[in-house]
Amino acid sequence: MKKAGATTTMATVPMQHVGPIQLAGPELSGEFMVPLATYESPLWPSVNRGARVTAQAGGIQAVIFDERMTRSVLVVAPDVVAAQNVVEFVQQSRAELAKVAAGTSRFAKLVDIHFEVVGHLVFIRFEFTTGDAAGHNMATRAADALLAWILERQPNCQYGSISGNYCCDKKPSAVNGILGRGKYTVAEVTLSARLVARYLHSTAEKIAELNTRKNLVGTALAGGLRSANAHFANMLLGFYLATGQDAANIIEGSQGFTLAEARPAGALYFSVTLPNLIVGSVGNGKELPFVQDNLRALGCLEKRPAGQNARRLALLCAATVLCGELSLLAAQTNPGELMAAHLRLERK
Amino acid sequence: MKKAGATTTMATVPMQHVGPIQLAGPELSGEFMVPLATYESPLWPSVNRGARVTAQAGGIQAVIFDERMTRSVLVVAPDVVAAQNVVEFVQQSRAELAKVAAGTSRFAKLVDIHFEVVGHLVFIRFEFTTGDAAGHNMATRAADALLAWILERQPNCQYGSISGNYCCDKKPSAVNGILGRGKYTVAEVTLSARLVARYLHSTAEKIAELNTRKNLVGTALAGGLRSANAHFANMLLGFYLATGQDAANIIEGSQGFTLAEARPAGALYFSVTLPNLIVGSVGNGKELPFVQDNLRALGCLEKRPAGQNARRLALLCAATVLCGELSLLAAQTNPGELMAAHLRLERK
Amino acid sequence: MKKAGATTTMATVPMQHVGPIQLAGPELSGEFMVPLATYESPLWPSVNRGARVTAQAGGIQAVIFDERMTRSVLVVAPDVVAAQNVVEFVQQSRAELAKVAAGTSRFAKLVDIHFEVVGHLVFIRFEFTTGDAAGHNMATRAADALLAWILERQPNCQYGSISGNYCCDKKPSAVNGILGRGKYTVAEVTLSARLVARYLHSTAEKIAELNTRKNLVGTALAGGLRSANAHFANMLLGFYLATGQDAANIIEGSQGFTLAEARPAGALYFSVTLPNLIVGSVGNGKELPFVQDNLRALGCLEKRPAGQNARRLALLCAATVLCGELSLLAAQTNPGELMAAHLRLERK
Amino acid sequence: MKKAGATTTMATVPMQHVGPIQLAGPELSGEFMVPLATYESPLWPSVNRGARVTAQAGGIQAVIFDERMTRSVLVVAPDVVAAQNVVEFVQQSRAELAKVAAGTSRFAKLVDIHFEVVGHLVFIRFEFTTGDAAGHNMATRAADALLAWILERQPNCQYGSISGNYCCDKKPSAVNGILGRGKYTVAEVTLSARLVARYLHSTAEKIAELNTRKNLVGTALAGGLRSANAHFANMLLGFYLATGQDAANIIEGSQGFTLAEARPAGALYFSVTLPNLIVGSVGNGKELPFVQDNLRALGCLEKRPAGQNARRLALLCAATVLCGELSLLAAQTNPGELMAAHLRLERK
Repeated sequence: MKKAGATTTMATVPMQHVGPIQLAGPELSGEFMVPLATYESPLWPSVNRGARVTAQAGGIQAVIFDERMTRSVLVVAPDVVAAQNVVEFVQQSRAELAKVAAGTSRFAKLVDIHFEVVGHLVFIRFEFTTGDAAGHNMATRAADALLAWILERQPNCQYGSISGNYCCDKKPSAVNGILGRGKYTVAEVTLSARLVARYLHSTAEKIAELNTRKNLVGTALAGGLRSANAHFANMLLGFYLATGQDAANIIEGSQGFTLAEARPAGALYFSVTLPNLIVGSVGNGKELPFVQDNLRALGCLEKRPAGQNARRLALLCAATVLCGELSLLAAQTNPGELMAAHLRLERK
Repeated sequence: MKKAGATTTMATVPMQHVGPIQLAGPELSGEFMVPLATYESPLWPSVNRGARVTAQAGGIQAVIFDERMTRSVLVVAPDVVAAQNVVEFVQQSRAELAKVAAGTSRFAKLVDIHFEVVGHLVFIRFEFTTGDAAGHNMATRAADALLAWILERQPNCQYGSISGNYCCDKKPSAVNGILGRGKYTVAEVTLSARLVARYLHSTAEKIAELNTRKNLVGTALAGGLRSANAHFANMLLGFYLATGQDAANIIEGSQGFTLAEARPAGALYFSVTLPNLIVGSVGNGKELPFVQDNLRALGCLEKRPAGQNARRLALLCAATVLCGELSLLAAQTNPGELMAAHLRLERK
Repeated sequence: MKKAGATTTMATVPMQHVGPIQLAGPELSGEFMVPLATYESPLWPSVNRGARVTAQAGGIQAVIFDERMTRSVLVVAPDVVAAQNVVEFVQQSRAELAKVAAGTSRFAKLVDIHFEVVGHLVFIRFEFTTGDAAGHNMATRAADALLAWILERQPNCQYGSISGNYCCDKKPSAVNGILGRGKYTVAEVTLSARLVARYLHSTAEKIAELNTRKNLVGTALAGGLRSANAHFANMLLGFYLATGQDAANIIEGSQGFTLAEARPAGALYFSVTLPNLIVGSVGNGKELPFVQDNLRALGCLEKRPAGQNARRLALLCAATVLCGELSLLAAQTNPGELMAAHLRLERK
Repeated sequence: MKKAGATTTMATVPMQHVGPIQLAGPELSGEFMVPLATYESPLWPSVNRGARVTAQAGGIQAVIFDERMTRSVLVVAPDVVAAQNVVEFVQQSRAELAKVAAGTSRFAKLVDIHFEVVGHLVFIRFEFTTGDAAGHNMATRAADALLAWILERQPNCQYGSISGNYCCDKKPSAVNGILGRGKYTVAEVTLSARLVARYLHSTAEKIAELNTRKNLVGTALAGGLRSANAHFANMLLGFYLATGQDAANIIEGSQGFTLAEARPAGALYFSVTLPNLIVGSVGNGKELPFVQDNLRALGCLEKRPAGQNARRLALLCAATVLCGELSLLAAQTNPGELMAAHLRLERK
């Protein structure tokens, strides 16, 4: 039996470039060939269809509302009165905590702190901006220092955990959407009736109705959590594997919202909202040559103020998710179309 | 600008074999080197530590309680009275529907049907066993035929969608855990106080307490959904990429439970429960040479009754998840250990 | 200081009868004055408005899809292999368990059993029909006997709890909607454009759009769970207090779905789906004179086959919820209307 | 058929005073007879048992961590770029918005604002302190004015709804726990082994283990949401009906956490955490004579700074919840005890 860890080889996933996907501002404009790695080969033509129809409409607008990476520590107080003291102490120490965090990394900046108390247990969620990194390790390192700093000054309290799961890393939760984790990114497009008919073989009314019934009502029935979409996860996985991201973060990423509305004259308003899009242009995985190639081709390795390359990546990712989501929803408005496409493509 | 889809290249992810991981029945026994593909290199030694300590304890027991793959269709009835008729019709037609499903694939077997009605909308969740395949496409193909069969016989009803999100594919939900999707797999081990101290530098009490506070209380605070674990997702992603699985299914997979209990004489009971472990030994991705190698080395390409290779894969995956979960939780009982390990390993 | 428990007095809540609410089959037809007890006096005219407009449209259709009351016990097995044995034993003993359950009450009938296993813990959800009672105590009594019966025959297992919270009583959960608890009741109506304009001062488009944005999208954003409604809880509370129900069951009851669709010619399709409507016409609270009066006036104290009076109550309750939900949603389509109505009514 | 709304009568619920419940600071100390209205007569002796044992231990400590009442409005922007402008405008207008809110009531004070954006839809959650009122109407009135103020200054935006369900009123959600709604109240006690044995017929180990297995694991299995308790709802309902509260708020209230830990020498640490305890000492319902009597007897009608009477009420409510939760959990550690108690008490 082979000795563990002796050799490192490579798992591989087929990759194609889809697009051009057209971005139409306000932060990023242009046409981009986007790499997607997947075993589900029908994903490529599907995203391509979305790319074509949105480009015909003048492109996709995308906006980032917030960005942060988080780590929650657990402090164990002797009782609830002491727990209250800890919470007050931490709130009053924000300026000093910000300095402690800044001392752990050139890029980690403490932007907010949230609390939850259960009995004598104090969960403290530290929230940072982390430059161009997704920031998991940077946040953990900073939280480690912050926790030690607090425990030194609260000697009646004890270490509980460097992570109290109120972060919340790679598990479905509500906290990430509500308090923020990753980049809160929205992408949208409006398509004329003609474009919807020609490229998507559907109508705005049908797509909006399906979105309400399937993504909103159906997900609620399934006991979904802060989620109303058809398959964000597929595009996220493809994009993450192609750009060297930690793909386990598709879990948070999959918790997002598709909104489709029929507008006058048969136009379709279509948007995807990804409150927890976790991407970085530096960090683990980014050093691989194919990742460097892909990031460079997307313009995400330029010299820019810290964080700008990662933001660019998030905007591109959201636009890609929009293309794939739009195409699949349109297909599902027509009986049999999804299966036929799958069969046709996979038998090739 | 490159034309879309012109060429297929390969995204890569570093892979090592960890273990040997020892399985101790009842369905699978032996020692296995398990491949894990990940950018997070500290994962390998961490899982290895779990493998060593569980092997010292005689190995990991693992059991599968249920298996199925699902697809929910949406039928639009004219009103709620008609909706009730559809539900009754489908319930009375189970035998015929089973035949229709069986006609779409050698392996698809309809095992159950569930319903949800919202107003005049009827969501029907078809549940199949799918042999050695994870079964997404098989379930979709069968659902396509079942939906057509129903609509032919309920002419006042209309096609709503081939997927109504009550399935629920690659999104966090409660339905998959409660009604089943994938293999419901539990792995467990009991470690003596000596083993916990020597290999994990911790105690049963500390690990059990941390599990309660972090995985149970902390996840509940985060607004988690049917989830109480530290990082199932990391092991799942590594295992999925190494064995050609659709890694987007780590979303459902991440919704699982760690249970840790202190037992007499300082022993530790430790188990992981994965109600939605979706794996297959055949299907998309499995044809890649490195995947074939890995599946073969795990004994998952043998001639066995349909489904047995996939079950074996699920048992191995659950045991791997146990090793990684145990090791991380133990590390988090000690202040600073997690960060120190990360720094040491990543600076290598 | 007064000695505890010495005397019983009465808390009171103001009550009015609203309606007539018109039911239009298939199970129940007629006009009904429905009692609602509430401190929120604007609720009465609001429900009355819904009653008037739905009566003008010919009345409300209401259907019950399922009914059951549940109790989950916890059995502690020594390990996961033993847990598997327990599950198999219980599944094979369904006929005997049904007899045990039937022996505990004239009305308790075991209709289904579901399982969840976490490590060595076995949660068993017993599901009963309970005649005209809401059935909490009947289910607990039966579960008590079933648990004792199982433990006698599985001597290596131990009592865990008579209630394992997988029931799930008076806490928000997904399991009650997915596996059933209470009566799964749907009520619907279709209103012409003229009725919507005249009585509700709104349009079908506006109401449908608000339902999508507020009840579906807004609730999902809030991290809601199997819920998409504006204020089911208000009508449920009023109805429960007026008919002697255990009002803590509004928690499950509040988890329901409003569906509003614009139809041709400006018509409005409007439905409320209450998967967990827990009501009884016998049991605690029903012996109070005002409750007897109210139940008698609603025709829910007639000699009928067991369960029929409780079903009638559920249908009436769902229709009442529809009236109140419709009226509030319509009000919220107009800026300022809700506040103006509250001020006007509360200053009276 | 009677004309609607003609007369107001009274629904009644049996009420007893339980206790004395002993509070031991830091904000409130003393012994209190607490009124509980319920049809479930076993609730009174059960809470009494908890009151006795906690008084023997020196009383219950209770702390309030936060308080606020919320209303979320929905603003419809023309597109996502305009949505971003609205968010920025509101953030920059905090000082003026605070003035607008203050102008709508002597007690409404705007304390925070949160946002969620889905496509072009902007959900704004206004958070207020509301003096001694629970504050629903005060918050709605203020939100009405704030929304009008914003829409006047953002002429390209439209009214969406006065309530966007991101508030989130009387529906289970995660947002209320995470961002706050009501009073975040924690009550705790530590009992010696002797007290646990004598009054509760149990042990700290058994109660802690049951809490983990039932309230934490079991609730997670049920697909619970930010909830880990046995029956907070029962005590909340009884307390709310007896003190003139809007009992529909037990829905949010039921989402809380029980923590039980075995301490050295067999002692039991036991706490209840109620992040969303919504109570007021003024407002609808409080004018009823029996409510006035009850509030006065609890010392909640004194002349105090605004908000202090309501805080006192929250502390008393949390202590009452602790007593009932402790007693039930202890009972459930013993096979058959719960059922025997119910039968004995209900047959009286």
